Amino acid sequence: MKGRATVLVGANRIETWEIDVHSPEPGGALVRTVLGGVCGSDVHIMTGEAGEMPFPIILGHEGVGEIVELGAGVSTDYAGVPVKPGDLVVWSPIALCHRCYSCTILEETPCENSRFFEDASKPNWGSYADFAWLPNSMPFYRLPDGAIPEAVAALGCALPTVLRGFDRCGPVRFGDSVVVQGAGPVGLSAVLVAAQAGAREVIVIDAAPARLEAAVKLGATATVSLGLPQDERKRMIYDRIGKQGPDIVIEAAGALPAFPEGVDISGIHSRYIILGLWGAIGTQPISPRDLTLKNLTIGGASFPAPKNYYHAMQFAARVQHEVPLAELVSHRFGISQAAEALHATKTGTATKAVIDPSIS
Amino acid sequence: MKGRATVLVGANRIETWEIDVHSPEPGGALVRTVLGGVCGSDVHIMTGEAGEMPFPIILGHEGVGEIVELGAGVSTDYAGVPVKPGDLVVWSPIALCHRCYSCTILEETPCENSRFFEDASKPNWGSYADFAWLPNSMPFYRLPDGAIPEAVAALGCALPTVLRGFDRCGPVRFGDSVVVQGAGPVGLSAVLVAAQAGAREVIVIDAAPARLEAAVKLGATATVSLGLPQDERKRMIYDRIGKQGPDIVIEAAGALPAFPEGVDISGIHSRYIILGLWGAIGTQPISPRDLTLKNLTIGGASFPAPKNYYHAMQFAARVQHEVPLAELVSHRFGISQAAEALHATKTGTATKAVIDPSIS
Amino acid sequence: MKGRATVLVGANRIETWEIDVHSPEPGGALVRTVLGGVCGSDVHIMTGEAGEMPFPIILGHEGVGEIVELGAGVSTDYAGVPVKPGDLVVWSPIALCHRCYSCTILEETPCENSRFFEDASKPNWGSYADFAWLPNSMPFYRLPDGAIPEAVAALGCALPTVLRGFDRCGPVRFGDSVVVQGAGPVGLSAVLVAAQAGAREVIVIDAAPARLEAAVKLGATATVSLGLPQDERKRMIYDRIGKQGPDIVIEAAGALPAFPEGVDISGIHSRYIILGLWGAIGTQPISPRDLTLKNLTIGGASFPAPKNYYHAMQFAARVQHEVPLAELVSHRFGISQAAEALHATKTGTATKAVIDPSIS
Amino acid sequence: MKGRATVLVGANRIETWEIDVHSPEPGGALVRTVLGGVCGSDVHIMTGEAGEMPFPIILGHEGVGEIVELGAGVSTDYAGVPVKPGDLVVWSPIALCHRCYSCTILEETPCENSRFFEDASKPNWGSYADFAWLPNSMPFYRLPDGAIPEAVAALGCALPTVLRGFDRCGPVRFGDSVVVQGAGPVGLSAVLVAAQAGAREVIVIDAAPARLEAAVKLGATATVSLGLPQDERKRMIYDRIGKQGPDIVIEAAGALPAFPEGVDISGIHSRYIILGLWGAIGTQPISPRDLTLKNLTIGGASFPAPKNYYHAMQFAARVQHEVPLAELVSHRFGISQAAEALHATKTGTATKAVIDPSIS
Repeated sequence: MKGRATVLVGANRIETWEIDVHSPEPGGALVRTVLGGVCGSDVHIMTGEAGEMPFPIILGHEGVGEIVELGAGVSTDYAGVPVKPGDLVVWSPIALCHRCYSCTILEETPCENSRFFEDASKPNWGSYADFAWLPNSMPFYRLPDGAIPEAVAALGCALPTVLRGFDRCGPVRFGDSVVVQGAGPVGLSAVLVAAQAGAREVIVIDAAPARLEAAVKLGATATVSLGLPQDERKRMIYDRIGKQGPDIVIEAAGALPAFPEGVDISGIHSRYIILGLWGAIGTQPISPRDLTLKNLTIGGASFPAPKNYYHAMQFAARVQHEVPLAELVSHRFGISQAAEALHATKTGTATKAVIDPSIS
Repeated sequence: MKGRATVLVGANRIETWEIDVHSPEPGGALVRTVLGGVCGSDVHIMTGEAGEMPFPIILGHEGVGEIVELGAGVSTDYAGVPVKPGDLVVWSPIALCHRCYSCTILEETPCENSRFFEDASKPNWGSYADFAWLPNSMPFYRLPDGAIPEAVAALGCALPTVLRGFDRCGPVRFGDSVVVQGAGPVGLSAVLVAAQAGAREVIVIDAAPARLEAAVKLGATATVSLGLPQDERKRMIYDRIGKQGPDIVIEAAGALPAFPEGVDISGIHSRYIILGLWGAIGTQPISPRDLTLKNLTIGGASFPAPKNYYHAMQFAARVQHEVPLAELVSHRFGISQAAEALHATKTGTATKAVIDPSIS
Repeated sequence: MKGRATVLVGANRIETWEIDVHSPEPGGALVRTVLGGVCGSDVHIMTGEAGEMPFPIILGHEGVGEIVELGAGVSTDYAGVPVKPGDLVVWSPIALCHRCYSCTILEETPCENSRFFEDASKPNWGSYADFAWLPNSMPFYRLPDGAIPEAVAALGCALPTVLRGFDRCGPVRFGDSVVVQGAGPVGLSAVLVAAQAGAREVIVIDAAPARLEAAVKLGATATVSLGLPQDERKRMIYDRIGKQGPDIVIEAAGALPAFPEGVDISGIHSRYIILGLWGAIGTQPISPRDLTLKNLTIGGASFPAPKNYYHAMQFAARVQHEVPLAELVSHRFGISQAAEALHATKTGTATKAVIDPSIS
Repeated sequence: MKGRATVLVGANRIETWEIDVHSPEPGGALVRTVLGGVCGSDVHIMTGEAGEMPFPIILGHEGVGEIVELGAGVSTDYAGVPVKPGDLVVWSPIALCHRCYSCTILEETPCENSRFFEDASKPNWGSYADFAWLPNSMPFYRLPDGAIPEAVAALGCALPTVLRGFDRCGPVRFGDSVVVQGAGPVGLSAVLVAAQAGAREVIVIDAAPARLEAAVKLGATATVSLGLPQDERKRMIYDRIGKQGPDIVIEAAGALPAFPEGVDISGIHSRYIILGLWGAIGTQPISPRDLTLKNLTIGGASFPAPKNYYHAMQFAARVQHEVPLAELVSHRFGISQAAEALHATKTGTATKAVIDPSIS
């Protein structure tokens, strides 16, 4: 059996390959891709901004698929739910080793031996492809009956990343006031989680009116335009929240200047969670004294744990009828149109683009 | 009744005043000072580096004293332990309001209406004085029988500050590897707590051999000289701990360059706790991407809670015979010698200086 | 000035008194009661089941009121929000001492010197009354603009109690499966919080179809009738959740047999939170081995902290248009009809009864 | 190659077998046993009190050994520390599946598919044997240089169990007062951890003077004889701690009556951690109301996680010269003397018995 896949053979060099489809190994699974999410990180990976990659690689680390075949010994997903061919699943694209300091002592992800990308010539779990071959120890979870694939795909790895950020830095508590920098998928996920978790205020900053509008639909209580001067942005936030300032600020902007602004607007005894600056290379000056005077905690997070994928999927399935999640998928492309999909993501044209292999 | 006190009448202007001793207010207490600790912050307060102060003020926020008289309605300390005149106590020098966002919602210190300094002409709790007048709502705790005042005073507000840092950022866990930047009172407190809490490695960085030696007595497993190049310091730390790097780095150096170095040496999934940069004005460039790649959390802490004073005092009393705490008090000065005490602290001559009112 | 109040002069002996209305003390406030919530505990207090009370007492520990006059020095609520006469507030009916082991070391409520009831002849904060006199240090919080008093009153102290339970025993996490025993105000609050917090399943057990229906409106995903045999109840729950069982069970039944059943149905590595058995005197046999085999944690909670009242109020105001909170107030009674209100609560006729002083 | 092993062929039926020694599988390791710890659970397993076992099984789940051969692909231990034949290691006797609800969602042990015992005819990790064959995914950790095998073996799985209990129920905080029921290996481990963690009081209850004496050597601040009446025991504890009672009670007695006594002596806002009742079948009556009135949390724990074994081993190595850990190993037996070893453990004759294969 053969299938197509989008292969990045070098920085900015995308090709569509015909590749062999392999049977699952013991403990693994073969999945037909239903939707492959296009993540902002994919753009950074394509351009080389995210560092050197082991080219050639199949793009795509967000996927919803249908089980085609289960490897020997597999009868449940990684949460113990029975599975069979035809079931819809999402997968966590990182295979952990379970035998390093991060895995067994710190119980944190990623681990020292994480497998994230695999050479395009080998059995492969990249999601811009007709099929994803999930190796033994790559967690996948069955979608609950009735879950809409688009609702799960809409926030892709952004929602798990937000959940991981709250795991690292503490959850949103009832009554907290929250500011979110940026209203792309990570920012929208943060808005959604904060609003659902009972935040008193969820204020989002972005330049694009359409994104701010989407944020309001997901629960933002106020929006602040990035077009306003920084002082004015801070004043608007403090007028709304009060002089103690926000309890939580979430960086989902991906732009370096967001960092010192985030430190500045953070309130007393507050947390500032860095999620979007994974792909932004460079430094920014901050005053460490501010951390002590405000009892401020700044925490970064990346590479969600398997449980974050599970919780994100369950959460999406639960709120899919309350909030317009599936609608966030604004653009669909075929496997051979991956370059366009990445372009729509890079330019911000798409709220969320997906690869849909059924589009020829 | 009259008593003497060290009054800061302006930046770098110290005087010894004769002041009235007031009876305690209802809920308060009058205490004869046994030892007033000289804190590094006092130096910053004296020089004006810590910002504007409401001069004239009585110096000293660390104190061990003997109860002279209890205000109406007071029969126990703030942990419910019965007290009477003659008992030794320590006090938390911050009176909280119990009616602001920090106090009742966040349950964090300091609060929006904290009282820290009081005008020298009013009843006053400054500890460079014969007597400290503790107002209603200023927590004090009785020393357990047998506690050595010097052992409690040795780490002054440094040990409560370290405990507060771990409250904010999570405790030392058994088997953690810990690096401490600086071996003044805050750094020594961090070494002591980390060692007692079961850290696997406690590596301390400082320039002064005497301080490093003191750190070893309190439980440091290795020392690194600040005189070595930064790359070499990092290499020594990683050789000892392993490639995952330290689980916790504690900034107790009080010097700005410590900040980017701390970010650099922090290990994966680790915490960097800022305690000493309270008095250091200025910025330093750091890369926010490092926070996401390492899942690093950076947290500042200042102004310990009352419980941190209680726990510090109990802890000192418990370990005073195991580790040479009382010996850390290297210099004693009378009230009228406060300028010398501050000089010995500023220059690092003293590991810990105290004001002893019995010295005339 | 005079006002009416419902006074419990002895077990089961209710009278309506005309009492003096006092000006607020410094730090306090005088509030005109808008709604006084009737709590299940009031029934236990009336009958004597909750232990001896310092009769005569004014009933009512749940209140929404309008500020009439502020005591000297008061310009904000206890979260720092500016207040003035005419503003609506809720209050936390427990004045903490801020000088005991619970207050300053454990930072837990209630404290060793908590003031909960006051003699009916003295200035008094009981809410079955025209006016509530809030002493200095009794926290009150301003309702946000637009908050519906009924929505805040509907879950009374039940919602703060649930929030306190999660503070003590850990929060509901995204994807958790939750079982709630009982669908009175505490159970309904638990359902609401669990559903909003992203629980995967929220299964509620009760005998009354009307209560189960209310639970579904607040977010329950399934209901189980108490009329079914216990084995059958467990089977239904496990069929729905899976063999690992519920992650959280919340006791809000107030009946002793719920206790061993809760231990039995609790899943592996799970939490069982006891909230409703405050008024149920007696023992039940359980097997401590079950706690080790399931890694089960059982935690009780009572007497919410001030922040729990604040968070509950903010939460109610935020969700009042999404879920039919105000409708839960099923019965209204005047001050002189308190006996009827208590009867309607005792018999379960009322989902939630309130005292409305405007009813003559 | 052949080796000896103690095989339990049925309840109370112990035999010494000569068994084949297998080469390690890929990812596994072959270890020569240096010390096999005799655990109280082994007695329950032998008698059948712990439930049905998959006989025949090789006894022993506590082991310190020397690496003989590493399986393909193994160059480090499970914390990333390089290993080679001849290195000393401890192992966690539970192989986790990494693909169930406990493993990937709850991140708790044990998991739904844990492998604990293996048929005696198969490659086997039982520690009452000359060799232990560790399968792929059974975590082992290298002892730091200088670690004394007896010091690590002395507290066997008891210390990891205590650490797991604190993971589940929260750690000992500086200044806590702790009561420990029972001074066998679990109780002694609890005393040691509590004392090292800075507890203010560590009070231990046991009937045997020798055990109480050992507890004092490990840091107990007071002892209470089980021979005194229960009321008197409680009075002694409260006299020492104060009216708020203990912050933490740890059940390490293994006897059912300890359970209601533990609930009774638990202080306000406290935790009661059940560790020893794993093998005690039966119920005890407790009053759930006590949990709400005291804000009491009762948590059970069993089956430590791999990190608990690592932390226990690191901790033992760190304190082995401060406290007389190695001395706790009071009895040594050869493989063929296992019945005697179990008898010495059952009767309490031995503080800690070990199997030493070098004894013929």
